[in-house]
Amino acid sequence: MSYQVSFISHGKTVAMEGGKTILDAAAAAGIPLESNCGSTGKCGKCKVRVAKGYAPQDAAAGRRFFSEEESAAGWVLGCKYEIKEDLEVEVPIQMDAGSRKTKLNSLLDNIVISSPIKKVYVEMDKPSIQDQCPDYERVLRALNIDAAGQRPSRGLLRVIPKTLRDAGFKITAVLLDDQVIWVEGGDTTAEKYGFVFDIGTTTVVALLIDLNDGSIKAAAAETNPQNVFGADVISRITYAMENGEEGLAQLHDKVVECMNDLALRAAAEAKVDKNHIYEATVVGNTTMSELFAGVDPTYLAPAPFIPAYVHGIEMSGAELGFTLNPELRVHLLPNIAGYVGADTMGVILGTHIHERPEYSLAIDVGTNGEIVLAGNNRILACSTAAGPAFEGAEIKFGMRAAEGAIEEVYIDNKSGGCHVKVIGDKKPRGICGSGLLDAVAQLYDEGILNLRGVFNVEGEEAEKIHPDLRKRIIKGEQGYEFVLTTKEESAKGVPVTICQKDIRELQMAKGAIYAGMRVLMNEMGITIDQVKELLVAGAFGSYIKTDSALSIGLFPDLPNGSILSIGNAASEGGRLALVSEAERALCDELARKSEYIELSSRVDFQDEYVMALYFPAKEETGSGE
Amino acid sequence: MSYQVSFISHGKTVAMEGGKTILDAAAAAGIPLESNCGSTGKCGKCKVRVAKGYAPQDAAAGRRFFSEEESAAGWVLGCKYEIKEDLEVEVPIQMDAGSRKTKLNSLLDNIVISSPIKKVYVEMDKPSIQDQCPDYERVLRALNIDAAGQRPSRGLLRVIPKTLRDAGFKITAVLLDDQVIWVEGGDTTAEKYGFVFDIGTTTVVALLIDLNDGSIKAAAAETNPQNVFGADVISRITYAMENGEEGLAQLHDKVVECMNDLALRAAAEAKVDKNHIYEATVVGNTTMSELFAGVDPTYLAPAPFIPAYVHGIEMSGAELGFTLNPELRVHLLPNIAGYVGADTMGVILGTHIHERPEYSLAIDVGTNGEIVLAGNNRILACSTAAGPAFEGAEIKFGMRAAEGAIEEVYIDNKSGGCHVKVIGDKKPRGICGSGLLDAVAQLYDEGILNLRGVFNVEGEEAEKIHPDLRKRIIKGEQGYEFVLTTKEESAKGVPVTICQKDIRELQMAKGAIYAGMRVLMNEMGITIDQVKELLVAGAFGSYIKTDSALSIGLFPDLPNGSILSIGNAASEGGRLALVSEAERALCDELARKSEYIELSSRVDFQDEYVMALYFPAKEETGSGE
Repeated sequence: MSYQVSFISHGKTVAMEGGKTILDAAAAAGIPLESNCGSTGKCGKCKVRVAKGYAPQDAAAGRRFFSEEESAAGWVLGCKYEIKEDLEVEVPIQMDAGSRKTKLNSLLDNIVISSPIKKVYVEMDKPSIQDQCPDYERVLRALNIDAAGQRPSRGLLRVIPKTLRDAGFKITAVLLDDQVIWVEGGDTTAEKYGFVFDIGTTTVVALLIDLNDGSIKAAAAETNPQNVFGADVISRITYAMENGEEGLAQLHDKVVECMNDLALRAAAEAKVDKNHIYEATVVGNTTMSELFAGVDPTYLAPAPFIPAYVHGIEMSGAELGFTLNPELRVHLLPNIAGYVGADTMGVILGTHIHERPEYSLAIDVGTNGEIVLAGNNRILACSTAAGPAFEGAEIKFGMRAAEGAIEEVYIDNKSGGCHVKVIGDKKPRGICGSGLLDAVAQLYDEGILNLRGVFNVEGEEAEKIHPDLRKRIIKGEQGYEFVLTTKEESAKGVPVTICQKDIRELQMAKGAIYAGMRVLMNEMGITIDQVKELLVAGAFGSYIKTDSALSIGLFPDLPNGSILSIGNAASEGGRLALVSEAERALCDELARKSEYIELSSRVDFQDEYVMALYFPAKEETGSGE
Repeated sequence: MSYQVSFISHGKTVAMEGGKTILDAAAAAGIPLESNCGSTGKCGKCKVRVAKGYAPQDAAAGRRFFSEEESAAGWVLGCKYEIKEDLEVEVPIQMDAGSRKTKLNSLLDNIVISSPIKKVYVEMDKPSIQDQCPDYERVLRALNIDAAGQRPSRGLLRVIPKTLRDAGFKITAVLLDDQVIWVEGGDTTAEKYGFVFDIGTTTVVALLIDLNDGSIKAAAAETNPQNVFGADVISRITYAMENGEEGLAQLHDKVVECMNDLALRAAAEAKVDKNHIYEATVVGNTTMSELFAGVDPTYLAPAPFIPAYVHGIEMSGAELGFTLNPELRVHLLPNIAGYVGADTMGVILGTHIHERPEYSLAIDVGTNGEIVLAGNNRILACSTAAGPAFEGAEIKFGMRAAEGAIEEVYIDNKSGGCHVKVIGDKKPRGICGSGLLDAVAQLYDEGILNLRGVFNVEGEEAEKIHPDLRKRIIKGEQGYEFVLTTKEESAKGVPVTICQKDIRELQMAKGAIYAGMRVLMNEMGITIDQVKELLVAGAFGSYIKTDSALSIGLFPDLPNGSILSIGNAASEGGRLALVSEAERALCDELARKSEYIELSSRVDFQDEYVMALYFPAKEETGSGE
């Protein structure tokens, strides 16, 4: 028998045989509905809501992915829900790979947009022998601004005479904090823009922001060109140290040039006049921040890891080397400590973590994992040396999250299946951080690894492994490896595998982060059941699967809390600080309020770390499958 | 008979025959006592006080030079006072060439010295793993300064790490307006200096000031190197106009380089570390001010003479091109209008003219004569095109006040004598502005010129001229000339003369200035008898003789007022603004309060000018000789 399945979200209807799934119907209707786990119900990507005709089906209930309320509202797994009558189905536009992880909305709608940049159009009287008011004072007079508090720059005074005359004394004045900083011919009041720059050790991102409403008009990103002096912060600090003033200047110039290029590119794309860009905020880790400011980071590298400053800095864009508006002001947001930088401040400000349900944890994971715990009127922050595992380095087949990288893994011990999702849908060349994490979690979930991270190759547990999967455990040069894709399936003609050492690296990385969270809780004097939420920042937060992170114990399983992905919160904080004076002041205030906890001087850190190396016992993960 | 003359001021005693003068005694004692008029009693330079043994002598009474009180106190002319008994004589250390002109004391003693630059020495705890406070924040902590209000510069942050460590964390912090702007190793709290720069069109002067007490530690001066682009402001504006950005940059660079050189020279002379120079104030006319700031002065030259700005500007010294402390702040004092500049503001501030007895007139004469009239809670200012006569230009034998220039002239119709004083005591090469003025005044006083400035060569008046002087009136190519020095007495083998055209030039110059003063009085609604004082600024005020200026009507004869020389008041104003925050704020306030009167739009100016071309009738000059 045939039924009508209407995808109300897409305005398409198909007829389907009874017993087929909604995933089949979507395929027939040409509606993209992701599914990466071979319809095993494990990836949760094919979530849909049956708006009409819904009847509970056990297999499609996806307990891991939906709350009871969601199930009652008709949310099901498309790959498992069988068509037994006419249905109306809603496919959500954006789906999140994670299950219990929801996306945090931008705070932009909750704050008052109030850029310190204001623009006012005026038509002035022309000078005469009876009215010899000087040009600059004429502008102030037309604006009805008292000259007493004004501190004009040379740059402004240089452009005023010609601008006024070229424009027939009809001009737009640009004000910053009630100071006239620029004049433009004609009425350009609508055009005011700024940039948020996120200087990552690896990637520099520029977001062109409309200062009127905070919207992102264009974005551009590029590899941080400082990488020619070293891939990580320590090697760049060393380069600056060994090459003195000149080395420092090279590092500074490289990144500023890159930022300026990105800005010009984004402005061109959005058809924005570069002279209409008046302010920028900059976030980055403390080393990136110091190099950007051209400050010697030498003493950051050795103990006791002392940065030159953590204070936010206001700088002249022209002096730095930007070719946007000559009066561009650049605000480098405050850092907290040598290894908790302005990027973490961006997370704190971008989430207003101090106002979120107590207690709230936030993590931003890269080579270092920065952790923040807020509540009880305190903000604690620490940094853990997570190591490079999450970035795919020091891993046998590790690679960055680029085309050809395995980013998701689905292993099913019942069927013996092993599926991978590869970036760009190519044959895999290797595995990136999120893929590694996913793979290890699946191996542990399906009983192929034990609690200590060791392959079950003998005994009772080994017997339980599906023969197809058991065949994938091979003996390599340095112990056992698990074959994710065969040599036929792989790009380079050799199988892509996960080896025992890779698993150890991951255990150390996740152990360090988990232990860092525990130390902050100890310092705060709370237990894990008091934590209401875990905010996961950055690319890491967007790409890894929450269930996998919970499985291996990278994320704590919060009995009374939820997990939220907060996207590029560092940039988000930069954006809030850019478009609101109040947020900028708040950022400085929160930075001063934040307490840095140095883990290397904590006796409890080592204990927590050792305990956190193992995977959580399975009853604790909440994984019910 | 012989008497003892004791010079109590110099601890010397000589025996003198009765009937000799005190001037003779001073010569015998080797005490320098100036006399330039051939002991005719006209120059007043030999003023002394007879402290013991005084008896009034008519010839020595010097009515022009002393008040009754002064005469009663024993003040006499040394060249006229005959020795008739034992005397004790006091020779004043500094004497003023003028008669009724007294020197105004610096206001420095009347204001509270309070430079915004403060220095504090601190010994800090060194960083450790238990105390990871960043370097900059560590400085603030040691100083007990709240970070919240601080806006550190990149420059400061760049030097902090090394300075702290090189000095073992014992440093002196430099604060400007309570902002930490610099750090120095060790205790340098005593060392804080600033500069006052006076950018004249012709000469640039730099005064090195101790910010602790306002004292001048060293001075240096140099010809303004912009002179290669033109001698006067109009030709420099034209150069900037015709050569665009590049021309402007040349003019800017030239003067900054000169100022920096002067500063380094003065600092070296006073053995002051150039890095201990933190602030500078700059005065100059409006064109010099704009060129120094690098602002296009194009619209200053043609009517309606509009400057780009008159507001005071704060600039970074390093950005301008100074190589003193990298955080040097340069304050360009406010101008008033296109042709009343920061130098005039220096006069206003340097004298606190707004607080002086009402009404107070001030003049600063160069190519332009700037005039200020204060009283009734108003400050009026104007500029008159005095022409170059006062600077020795456009005059037949005119030259600048350099070696070989006649600077004073004494003519005595009774004896037929004509004496000149030459700068450097050389044979004269020409005559400078003050010499010209003096010569014309003497020619008029002694009846050689008539009221209209024409030589008395026939009629009753010509008959009265001493034959020796009459011989000096010769007929040149363009009318009559008066021979000041014969060809034998002159350096170039030709006589130095004053011709009819020279006299006309001077008449026009003095007429313009006098008319300017009259217009300000008209605007203020006062008459000349309400003016309590005339303040005469600059080199002009120091060198010209008041009596001469009164004789020809350059200065008004104030029935109820006195004339004061105020020296380089422009620099003095710069110094007050440098060493006192209150004075700096007052300067801005007075600049905004000052009203510029454009003479070219005043109908009364032309009338006053024509009337002022003649010399004053003699009964009006108050000259009793």
